[in-house]
Amino acid sequence: MQTYTVAIVGATGAVGAKILDKLIERKFPFRSVKLLASSRSAGTVIQAGGRLFTIEEAKPESFDGVDFAFFSAGGAISENLASEATRWGTVVIDNTSAFRMDAEVPLVVPEVNPKALDSHNGLIANPNCSTIQMVVALNPIKEAFGLKKILVSTYQAVSGAGADAILELKSQSGQFDSRAENSASQLPSAGAERHYPIAFNAIPQIDSFDDMGYTKEEWKMINETKKIFNDSTIAVSATCVRLPVVTGHSESVYVEIEKEGITAEEFSRAISKAPGVIVQDNPATQTYPMPLFAENKDDVYVGRIRKDPDHPRGFHLWIVADNLLKGAALNSVQIAEQLLKNRDAQNN
Amino acid sequence: MQTYTVAIVGATGAVGAKILDKLIERKFPFRSVKLLASSRSAGTVIQAGGRLFTIEEAKPESFDGVDFAFFSAGGAISENLASEATRWGTVVIDNTSAFRMDAEVPLVVPEVNPKALDSHNGLIANPNCSTIQMVVALNPIKEAFGLKKILVSTYQAVSGAGADAILELKSQSGQFDSRAENSASQLPSAGAERHYPIAFNAIPQIDSFDDMGYTKEEWKMINETKKIFNDSTIAVSATCVRLPVVTGHSESVYVEIEKEGITAEEFSRAISKAPGVIVQDNPATQTYPMPLFAENKDDVYVGRIRKDPDHPRGFHLWIVADNLLKGAALNSVQIAEQLLKNRDAQNN
Repeated sequence: MQTYTVAIVGATGAVGAKILDKLIERKFPFRSVKLLASSRSAGTVIQAGGRLFTIEEAKPESFDGVDFAFFSAGGAISENLASEATRWGTVVIDNTSAFRMDAEVPLVVPEVNPKALDSHNGLIANPNCSTIQMVVALNPIKEAFGLKKILVSTYQAVSGAGADAILELKSQSGQFDSRAENSASQLPSAGAERHYPIAFNAIPQIDSFDDMGYTKEEWKMINETKKIFNDSTIAVSATCVRLPVVTGHSESVYVEIEKEGITAEEFSRAISKAPGVIVQDNPATQTYPMPLFAENKDDVYVGRIRKDPDHPRGFHLWIVADNLLKGAALNSVQIAEQLLKNRDAQNN
Repeated sequence: MQTYTVAIVGATGAVGAKILDKLIERKFPFRSVKLLASSRSAGTVIQAGGRLFTIEEAKPESFDGVDFAFFSAGGAISENLASEATRWGTVVIDNTSAFRMDAEVPLVVPEVNPKALDSHNGLIANPNCSTIQMVVALNPIKEAFGLKKILVSTYQAVSGAGADAILELKSQSGQFDSRAENSASQLPSAGAERHYPIAFNAIPQIDSFDDMGYTKEEWKMINETKKIFNDSTIAVSATCVRLPVVTGHSESVYVEIEKEGITAEEFSRAISKAPGVIVQDNPATQTYPMPLFAENKDDVYVGRIRKDPDHPRGFHLWIVADNLLKGAALNSVQIAEQLLKNRDAQNN
């Protein structure tokens, strides 16, 4: 069997560490893994899958001989180093937003648009976490019934804002009585002008605002969904909200389908056939997805499937997934696996 | 000035206590207040506004001589005692769901449909907390531009599930590391078959389910909105979710208006003129409503006002209010105040 040299840029971050875990767990055919990070972390030893890995400083020449490089160290690092990597012939799978809307760069969720990988210039983008879980759940609906409109309100976990945001939630959560006066420095984002406590709160801002009053997170959901579905005629709009949840994004999604006369049961059955999706939907037993129980799970969970009482083509669903796994690390590794499948198919 | 005898049924509950506070704070012209509760609480002394009040057991004859009775002790108590009270000539303002959809019973938010009070049989219903804040914010939109469709996803606080739910959130919040195993007995509701931890979670169930897969809370929002707006042609649908927030419900609301060509600025200006509403909406300064800062406030806060990029008559807004005040106690007292205004108007 052919084996590959793999690099992870941003190996000290939460997503980088989970990419390494998934490569080992899913038996990706690597012969070696280079863990790359800033010079500050160089020399640090990391244990994963019973083996030890030493962090090296990420440099342009780090990619010599690397077949696949996973980038998850922020948009600026990707902008600086990804083209250096591709120059060495490395295929870059980038988890930042740097290249996602670049027309030359495929934006891929393997269950949804694997064919987008057929042509690329060495650079493949992994979509935003909140987009991935939504398109995985909605793709079978689009294929079976057509999608006219998507409206989503998110309930997003703090782990999407980094490890320090998790620590801040933990600390504030112990200070119940002073909850409105708790000090805050991490949310809506560490770099924001103003910070608000997240414990016992809901912050309707993820990333920065544009002139229309939308946040970048909301535009990611709007634009990435249209690109992944390769259909700019689907109407998409979004409201993104950060919650005191550690890991696991939830989404209240409303869709208008094209086909007439579809029942909630037919809608549900279409979703249940989708790869990577588990329907958890039984009101009689209070069965529905919740973020607390999606942590560390690979699948996308869907429940609360219902028909709009006032619109014959309107449906609700509630979509939950681990934002660090299917929303980031797992999807990135699945992209690499899909590339190998495509190569095998070409070679046969 | 004429003065009145007032009773509060369920005076030991969170909403009952706040009704007493609001009667005192707003100088409701009472000459005496009877605090009524179950026999278990009879004799308990409560302090409010520098005065002492002794709880009495609620009985059919408790209402002799009572002008206004506020009921907030659960639907079963209202069903048993409200008609007894009206038989004594008492006007009942009921905060439970027992009579809200009764065609004979006005369902009133004074800023929205005060005229509904013109005819009643002694019984007036206070709407559900999540409905009140939404209709207060949307009423000026309905009046200025017409409303075709409302889609709401809620972010609701645990105080709506009672004092024990607040204590459970506090206790679980201190147990960060065991979050998925924390014991739970209060949510989605104390009487539910299965319970889930609320800390670090989002539970997409408030109240029990019907055959269509909707919860009672969702139907309350759908049906009460149409009744208060006195317009069954407005399409309404809802998804209701409980969050680890103490007090303060938030709502991500999407509306389609009837009028063409309205800008987000015009939409916002219409809302800002509404009584009881404060627009907090400035992306440049990260100004938007948050539940943590709405606790103990009377007003309904609105922000994140935006136009749907893909629908010329679609708008988003984010509505936050204290669910125990405008959502319950304050609105109940405002109903009584409105009844007095109407009497004054008739007498002049």
